[in-house]
Amino acid sequence: MANISKKVSWSGRGDDRGERTPLLNGAEDGKYNRHVLHFVFQSLDYDNSENQLFLEEERRMSHMGFRCLETRRWVICGLIGFLTGLIACLIDIAVEKLAGYKYSAVKQNIEKFTEFGGLSISLILWAVLNSAFVMVGAIAVAFFEPIAAGSGIPQIKCYLNGVKIPRVVRLKTLAIKVFGVICSVAGGLAVGKEGPMIHSGAVVAAGVSQGRSTSLKKDFKIFEYFRRDTEKRDFVSAGAAAGVSAAFGAPVGGVLFSLEEGASFWNQMLTWRIFFASMISTFTLNFFLSIYHGKPGELSSPGLINFGRFDGDYIPFESFLFFSFHFPGGVLGALFNVINYWLTIFRIRYIHRPCLQVMEAMLVAAVTATVSFAMIYFSNDCQPLGQDNTEEYSLQLFCADGEYNSMATAFFNTPERSVRSLFHNPPGSYNPLTLGVFTLAYFVLAVWTYGLTVSAGVFIPSLLIGAAWGRLFGILLSTITSSQSIWADPGKYALIGAAAQLGGIVRMTLSLTVILVEATGSVTYGFPIMLVLITAKIVGDYFIEGLYDVHIKLQSVPFLHWEAPPTSHWLTAREVMSSPVTCFNRVEKVGRIVDVLSNTSTNHNGFPVVAHTTENDEPGKICGLILRSQLIVLLKHKVFVERASSRLSHRKLQLKDFRDAYPRFPPIQSIHVSQDERECMMDLTEFMNPTPYTVPQETSLPRVFKLFRALGLRHLVVVDNENGVVGLVTRKDLARYHLGKDGLEELHLAQT
Amino acid sequence: MANISKKVSWSGRGDDRGERTPLLNGAEDGKYNRHVLHFVFQSLDYDNSENQLFLEEERRMSHMGFRCLETRRWVICGLIGFLTGLIACLIDIAVEKLAGYKYSAVKQNIEKFTEFGGLSISLILWAVLNSAFVMVGAIAVAFFEPIAAGSGIPQIKCYLNGVKIPRVVRLKTLAIKVFGVICSVAGGLAVGKEGPMIHSGAVVAAGVSQGRSTSLKKDFKIFEYFRRDTEKRDFVSAGAAAGVSAAFGAPVGGVLFSLEEGASFWNQMLTWRIFFASMISTFTLNFFLSIYHGKPGELSSPGLINFGRFDGDYIPFESFLFFSFHFPGGVLGALFNVINYWLTIFRIRYIHRPCLQVMEAMLVAAVTATVSFAMIYFSNDCQPLGQDNTEEYSLQLFCADGEYNSMATAFFNTPERSVRSLFHNPPGSYNPLTLGVFTLAYFVLAVWTYGLTVSAGVFIPSLLIGAAWGRLFGILLSTITSSQSIWADPGKYALIGAAAQLGGIVRMTLSLTVILVEATGSVTYGFPIMLVLITAKIVGDYFIEGLYDVHIKLQSVPFLHWEAPPTSHWLTAREVMSSPVTCFNRVEKVGRIVDVLSNTSTNHNGFPVVAHTTENDEPGKICGLILRSQLIVLLKHKVFVERASSRLSHRKLQLKDFRDAYPRFPPIQSIHVSQDERECMMDLTEFMNPTPYTVPQETSLPRVFKLFRALGLRHLVVVDNENGVVGLVTRKDLARYHLGKDGLEELHLAQT
Repeated sequence: MANISKKVSWSGRGDDRGERTPLLNGAEDGKYNRHVLHFVFQSLDYDNSENQLFLEEERRMSHMGFRCLETRRWVICGLIGFLTGLIACLIDIAVEKLAGYKYSAVKQNIEKFTEFGGLSISLILWAVLNSAFVMVGAIAVAFFEPIAAGSGIPQIKCYLNGVKIPRVVRLKTLAIKVFGVICSVAGGLAVGKEGPMIHSGAVVAAGVSQGRSTSLKKDFKIFEYFRRDTEKRDFVSAGAAAGVSAAFGAPVGGVLFSLEEGASFWNQMLTWRIFFASMISTFTLNFFLSIYHGKPGELSSPGLINFGRFDGDYIPFESFLFFSFHFPGGVLGALFNVINYWLTIFRIRYIHRPCLQVMEAMLVAAVTATVSFAMIYFSNDCQPLGQDNTEEYSLQLFCADGEYNSMATAFFNTPERSVRSLFHNPPGSYNPLTLGVFTLAYFVLAVWTYGLTVSAGVFIPSLLIGAAWGRLFGILLSTITSSQSIWADPGKYALIGAAAQLGGIVRMTLSLTVILVEATGSVTYGFPIMLVLITAKIVGDYFIEGLYDVHIKLQSVPFLHWEAPPTSHWLTAREVMSSPVTCFNRVEKVGRIVDVLSNTSTNHNGFPVVAHTTENDEPGKICGLILRSQLIVLLKHKVFVERASSRLSHRKLQLKDFRDAYPRFPPIQSIHVSQDERECMMDLTEFMNPTPYTVPQETSLPRVFKLFRALGLRHLVVVDNENGVVGLVTRKDLARYHLGKDGLEELHLAQT
Repeated sequence: MANISKKVSWSGRGDDRGERTPLLNGAEDGKYNRHVLHFVFQSLDYDNSENQLFLEEERRMSHMGFRCLETRRWVICGLIGFLTGLIACLIDIAVEKLAGYKYSAVKQNIEKFTEFGGLSISLILWAVLNSAFVMVGAIAVAFFEPIAAGSGIPQIKCYLNGVKIPRVVRLKTLAIKVFGVICSVAGGLAVGKEGPMIHSGAVVAAGVSQGRSTSLKKDFKIFEYFRRDTEKRDFVSAGAAAGVSAAFGAPVGGVLFSLEEGASFWNQMLTWRIFFASMISTFTLNFFLSIYHGKPGELSSPGLINFGRFDGDYIPFESFLFFSFHFPGGVLGALFNVINYWLTIFRIRYIHRPCLQVMEAMLVAAVTATVSFAMIYFSNDCQPLGQDNTEEYSLQLFCADGEYNSMATAFFNTPERSVRSLFHNPPGSYNPLTLGVFTLAYFVLAVWTYGLTVSAGVFIPSLLIGAAWGRLFGILLSTITSSQSIWADPGKYALIGAAAQLGGIVRMTLSLTVILVEATGSVTYGFPIMLVLITAKIVGDYFIEGLYDVHIKLQSVPFLHWEAPPTSHWLTAREVMSSPVTCFNRVEKVGRIVDVLSNTSTNHNGFPVVAHTTENDEPGKICGLILRSQLIVLLKHKVFVERASSRLSHRKLQLKDFRDAYPRFPPIQSIHVSQDERECMMDLTEFMNPTPYTVPQETSLPRVFKLFRALGLRHLVVVDNENGVVGLVTRKDLARYHLGKDGLEELHLAQT
């Protein structure tokens, strides 16, 4: 069992205090442990607690009531899709305006100074404009909501995996995220807006589905049935899918993304609703963007990205060439991830204060402008202005009249347009040397940019890097074959290169294939894209995980993969479980409950309820499971046996009381229990889950894992053959095991 | 609880005798009970029995061993895709040749007789050719393999649902199916070849993955690890997806079809492999068909169906018109299903002998030819021959030179071509009256044809019916608006009408949306297609289920839907379970085992193993679960305690012995146990599943259902709070409950 002694200690805390700085001890002693799990991360309660209150409510509901409920779910999903589409629209229009303003200002300045020299003024202007935009965005993220940094995809992956990441689906996070991504993209950083779109969709879903805003303290008194983790996580799946759909114009890709990241068991109704939300999202975006562009009804912008249609075909021989792209894609992707990994550790160690983070972001923005400018300045690659000039900000610079600087088209443009140009510009539009230098420069910029304290995605930069070297390969190929034959169309190779590079970095396969197929509108390219993604993943996985998994690991999140590691059959539940378990009696003393909950050394959230604890060591027989959140609500409302029998005026507790307290249950410290009340007894029978899932202690680890994952559990009680409670399996018990280079490894739980 | 007294009694038997006629008692007394389940249908053992033998094997395997296994799964899936693509190719080419021969013969005949009269000769020729083809196909199906009748989709749905349908994935079934569908389509019936393609893919998968052919008695001694239901069902999912992919050129649609029909828990690795098989399938088909058509590398035939690309857009107003199609789609679909339902009951009652079935098929073929001929003869709808004449067998008939009979193009063609014409022919190609009469005639023919004892699918006929009335609507719309504006392009309405009609009949939504989007190559139409499919399903479900579900119900298969019925929370495991349960001791007497297995009144397949049965009524404590198939193998190899201790020469039983006996375990009657042997004891400890899933008896029905469905179980043991066995939940216990018009209904188990 490998035990690396270095410690990393940047983790989120599971409470509201919003620690923005890493735990200082780790940073101070400068040690990092990549192989720890932080037990502060809690799981979502996806498995429904079917206590008596819940069953009574369900039995009271008629068939019409269930239909109303189902209709409401569909309405919410439609709303989620609509709002996500609107937000995408807003982002797109804002970026277009701001970036347009910046580019035209710089272009005018460049044109003014080209004749007379003094282009350094233009450089300074460009750098200043970039830094200004990025500074505003970075300040918003670093000082107001650090969880909005990055693309958001790792956090949403964790949420759909069942881990509660604090503050990840709050309204404030959404606002900062949207604002931040507009600033980042307008600021010319090597970033994309797609990842933040997915995060935004998830937040919209989390907010809309609950019918209230905890941040704004407004309760619309609707959708109260959905105020629990079971329903919320389902809606967040729909929101993430709507986000993918709006980002790429790929509704089916969105559904598959949600399923890949978040599915436990196959839920047909949920899958339909996710698909519905995705469709509405892309349709809304399409509709409003076409109105904005003055061509209502043309419906030509199904997504923020528009790759243009790939109509051509490819001959089977080209398939082999396409297939060979997996190697550079995987290797370069692994290189990207390794460099970014070390860079992130550096940032954790040294750049952990907000002002430093903002300054780093501004520096990167200025350097991006400088590098772009330098490359434009020093390249002599002039191309004649074509008939169908699709370049909006073509720079003439030092070229003759009627020509434009082709390096400029790559740098002086939003990355999406650059990708599109690389896909569809006719052969001969790019000089190979230009492309080669561009690839290198952009790779360095992109790897430096990801992980900054700004809202930014990594999809587009990866696609751009791959499109560049892919096209380079296509150009070299047509040079070698010395022909302008159709089959050496470099645009195709740009597409496959882009797919290979993206796959090498993020290691998504199924959903990404479908996303790219939908975004390019071509099923024919689906086959080589899929092959290349799968094989790039295999190559890349040899060196390091995907980028999102790297960042998830750096945060020490107890992430559960799809199955148990392959050689883990010799482990049983007995070895894996946490033991001994803190149990409660069916009728328990309040004082004991308060003491157990207040115990900060253990942070239990689920407690088996046993028929009667015995004085000797015999385990009590299981009769239920109760959660910390439920106990807190009971303590808050003082639901004591003595009170009920003495008929003090308090109404019977209802499910509504639990739902009102959801999701931010008060901490135990805020509940005041007097000395007398500590002697009272609390009857848990009505409120506990009377039929929790159990496994016998000889069950193999893969079997335990499958049950846990398939049902999305949070606690799994381990019993002996008399049904006595011997242990409890939670997420961290299972996430500890993973396959390393030398076999099965066990991660350790950090005590901080 | 509704209890309809009519009895239907056509069910498959769970053995090898291949009953082809329905149980005579039901047919004789002419009663039908739609609301019965037949307990002869057994479930698949999808949940792996992790007994000691299995665990030892797993623990012996190194990490490399697991990787080899995974690689083998991928190779098998690739092979499945490849073979499925080849079969699709074969079907397509054979149909093209035979149908081409038939049409050119009839065309020549018609042209010969048009001038001189005597067209009745042409009619007779057409009818005879049709009947001849169909007769051969029907004889093959009716006399040799009745399970190959129909499209095969209901049977594959059941298989993926976890029900063992006898003989559904055998080599003989595949051969008859392929041969039959070629004959049916060449014979001009109102059928398609897509459903049979899906069935063929499933059979290919079942065969290839086992590495042997039980029919041909050849064992290639490979893939022995996969000889169990767990693996086989996963491969059949891949095969079905490959079939969908080859049929429609829709690999993602194939994956979603498999997931919708067969997924229990989300299995990422399996989903990748299914996707891989689908991609290989469409690529193989595309590759070989393009070679066959003399255009290698053009890769323009990704599927058997080629709808042509839909490039246009639609304006938002048209979306409302599209949406309105759900109503005729749903209503006409329900009408189709109702008529076909009564027709099927009629067939069960009266047309149950093979010769009668063949004669009925021939009659339908002849009538189809007659109706087609009559409509061509009596229509005066002549259209000028266009420049881009896409009609291969254009009939001039009574039109002037340079013109062709447009009714003929609809009838004198394979249905796929007709659908494509309706989608893409320019406005004005069809006369509204022609289309109206065609819709009616084809509807009647299609509803009469489905359910014949031939191999035939219903996708294409449904699409054709919908395309016809959809186009009719488009034509009427442009007549009303009195303009030839772009937005009244009737081809679009044909597409939406086709989707609405197909959705109204088969009630598939998600996978069908994706299939149609892939087949038409247009994401833009995805939104209206999805809306129309969902709403047509809602409308149609009000009247009757989808066509496949109707036929599944008629066969009384215990089919488990995606979730428990909505108002079933008041039912618990105690009310649902089968009780009392036949249990075995850990060390049990052979005679008792043989008697229990030989008891034909109960057909149990799973037996809880208890620590010690008690003399009083106290339930024994569960310690495992053993299957009938495992007991049979133990009895066959005489694995008795006495024998082991007396060191008689018999080797230790291995997993291989179980896998060799799979899947056709010998019946208990063929195992001979002498009187002495009956007194021996058998130790079940090593062979039983030591950790079966259990639920407490107070668990609500939806919770039991979710566990059962999510893990794909066959047996679920119900225990009391001392872990004593009180009951057993199997598929039939759960499938009994469904929501009828008046609330929750319980079906009864047929005793036959």
